Amino acid sequence: MRFFDHNATTPLLPVARDAWLQASESAWLNPSSPYRSGAAVHARLEEARESLADLFSIEPQRIVFNSGATEGNNAVFAHWAKNLVSGARVGVSPTEHPSVIEAAKEYFEGRIVWLPLNECGAVDVAAVNFEELSAVSVMAANNETGLLNSWAEIAEACAKAGIPFHCDASQWIGKMALEGFGICDFMTGCAHKFGGPKGVGFLIAPEAMTSGLHGGQQEGGRRAGTEDVAGILAMLAALESTESKRAECTDSLKEVFWQGLKEALPEVRRVGGDAPALWNTLSVILPDFASARWIRALEKRGFLVSAGSACSTGKEGPSHVLAAMGIDSACAGRVLRISSGWETAETDWDGLLSALLASYEDLRAEASDSNSQVISI
Amino acid sequence: MRFFDHNATTPLLPVARDAWLQASESAWLNPSSPYRSGAAVHARLEEARESLADLFSIEPQRIVFNSGATEGNNAVFAHWAKNLVSGARVGVSPTEHPSVIEAAKEYFEGRIVWLPLNECGAVDVAAVNFEELSAVSVMAANNETGLLNSWAEIAEACAKAGIPFHCDASQWIGKMALEGFGICDFMTGCAHKFGGPKGVGFLIAPEAMTSGLHGGQQEGGRRAGTEDVAGILAMLAALESTESKRAECTDSLKEVFWQGLKEALPEVRRVGGDAPALWNTLSVILPDFASARWIRALEKRGFLVSAGSACSTGKEGPSHVLAAMGIDSACAGRVLRISSGWETAETDWDGLLSALLASYEDLRAEASDSNSQVISI
Repeated sequence: MRFFDHNATTPLLPVARDAWLQASESAWLNPSSPYRSGAAVHARLEEARESLADLFSIEPQRIVFNSGATEGNNAVFAHWAKNLVSGARVGVSPTEHPSVIEAAKEYFEGRIVWLPLNECGAVDVAAVNFEELSAVSVMAANNETGLLNSWAEIAEACAKAGIPFHCDASQWIGKMALEGFGICDFMTGCAHKFGGPKGVGFLIAPEAMTSGLHGGQQEGGRRAGTEDVAGILAMLAALESTESKRAECTDSLKEVFWQGLKEALPEVRRVGGDAPALWNTLSVILPDFASARWIRALEKRGFLVSAGSACSTGKEGPSHVLAAMGIDSACAGRVLRISSGWETAETDWDGLLSALLASYEDLRAEASDSNSQVISI
Repeated sequence: MRFFDHNATTPLLPVARDAWLQASESAWLNPSSPYRSGAAVHARLEEARESLADLFSIEPQRIVFNSGATEGNNAVFAHWAKNLVSGARVGVSPTEHPSVIEAAKEYFEGRIVWLPLNECGAVDVAAVNFEELSAVSVMAANNETGLLNSWAEIAEACAKAGIPFHCDASQWIGKMALEGFGICDFMTGCAHKFGGPKGVGFLIAPEAMTSGLHGGQQEGGRRAGTEDVAGILAMLAALESTESKRAECTDSLKEVFWQGLKEALPEVRRVGGDAPALWNTLSVILPDFASARWIRALEKRGFLVSAGSACSTGKEGPSHVLAAMGIDSACAGRVLRISSGWETAETDWDGLLSALLASYEDLRAEASDSNSQVISI
């Protein structure tokens, strides 16, 4: 199977697996234990915090290790609910991940200001009235479309307005440059989006953050629970590895694929057009057939692609991201999300194009068979 | 190092490591993915849920996978805060883990009824007025002392009173029989307490539970976030393994150790006396010297023991568990918690006794040196 769904999750990188195994042997003690060998594990945890902080050029104490992006995003809104002024209004992009949108609704129902989007689906910063907001949450890169937001510009505008800014960077980290996130008050990261294990992530947060999980005094009192040191070291190894490969990653293979697709199927449309996007992500509206049928047809030919967020699976109705971008539900129902990885090669993209065109033939043949059957009945 | 701190955490069992590695290779796709190979991972997740449910003789849909006991305990109180009647009073044992006590304070400050304890430190069920309570949370076995609560009796009393009961069984699971927990409305489990990986656990909960983490519709809408299938399969493998060994685990080696210790140091006291306790746990009040000095002396001699909950490390003051049991802070300051594992052998216990007695000599010699230095000055 050739995997074009890296925005849903990524295979565990060998370096991450090795780090996990090694830590499971040598750093399994509880880092809060009172003996020196426990303190040694605590020291490895703090070294990991420093190494991760160095990648973002921030102070280590701003990092809170947790179970992943959903927990991180929830923790930010829970913290805001306790610490912002009564009646606070929170600006949220309508294209956020469900774990931001649902957390926002949980804590700020009726007080969410859905931020305006420009014609490409990114937050239209100039159209935001920061003065009416008490906090803002905007993702760095969209999981469904790959489209980038001007998060640094938004962070600066929030700083100017004196309000906290949260950036869910789950899809950005491991794919794009890590510099500059220090200006975000809060930032979410998730290991399994960049070759680390599932169930581990981190939040960049102020030292005075209120804990989302109450209990022990781990993580500077900001996140109770025994730290998953093996998972954390594996996450760090994964990010260091993707960082070392990132410079070579460009969107050129994706663009060649897109040109080829457009030539073969002139009616195909690209979600977000030519707006800045992650190098690995392409969201296309196909001329015919529901996403689910394309996915099945492509899987039969050895390719895994998806239609949208895996976290949205099971929800009724079309993608909220595409709806917020003004894409009608008929078009949204024919979308494929194609997201490559660090090792995806030209031959993989070539293979995907051939498989997609062959799948189109398969689907048309099926449809034609099914039509003739209807007629013959 | 011989490890007598299994209540803090346990080494990863080889079967759990193998399950994790195997799943990281073969079941790393996002189980919410729309393609069939994603559905196959989802199927493995559901098989794990069924196998775990079978161990507890409950319906699989009652199991919610999460990041561990702290999250599980927090989720129960968050759920109660949203769903119990306004002004609800919640009965909590004063010996609970910090993740129960702090979650209770977060959501029910001023409305917590601290349940009475009997002379052995267990909840005195007959003295509880269930009619004044809207919910009850009592742990199965205490992490610091190993003392057992009559959780089944409390569950029945709660059912009779028509109020929900939560049992934090983090220390029980893997050590004691799993049958009977079906009568608890909520029950918390944590993999790294029974040879599984850190960062993964589960909650037994009603199907109508409100989610603690908002976002995707994973876990029947009760816990958003991509499931850590590798961690879950490793947790299951660990529990199946400890279950197969559990029948052979008795407290006989611990009791031999205790008799030997009492003979050598007649002033030593046992926390909870002869009350029912986990087979692996012994909490003793030593005649002299602070816990931290004992821990250091024993570590030098190759043994790891602790003083109390690792999650309480960093908190000021004596153990809340010992204080609730009426043990004065002077005595509480000389407590050692000794918690063995499934593989701990007679020679380990013999070695611990010798090391403890030798450490006593070391500590007395240090004290005497230090006294003579004071005198010589």
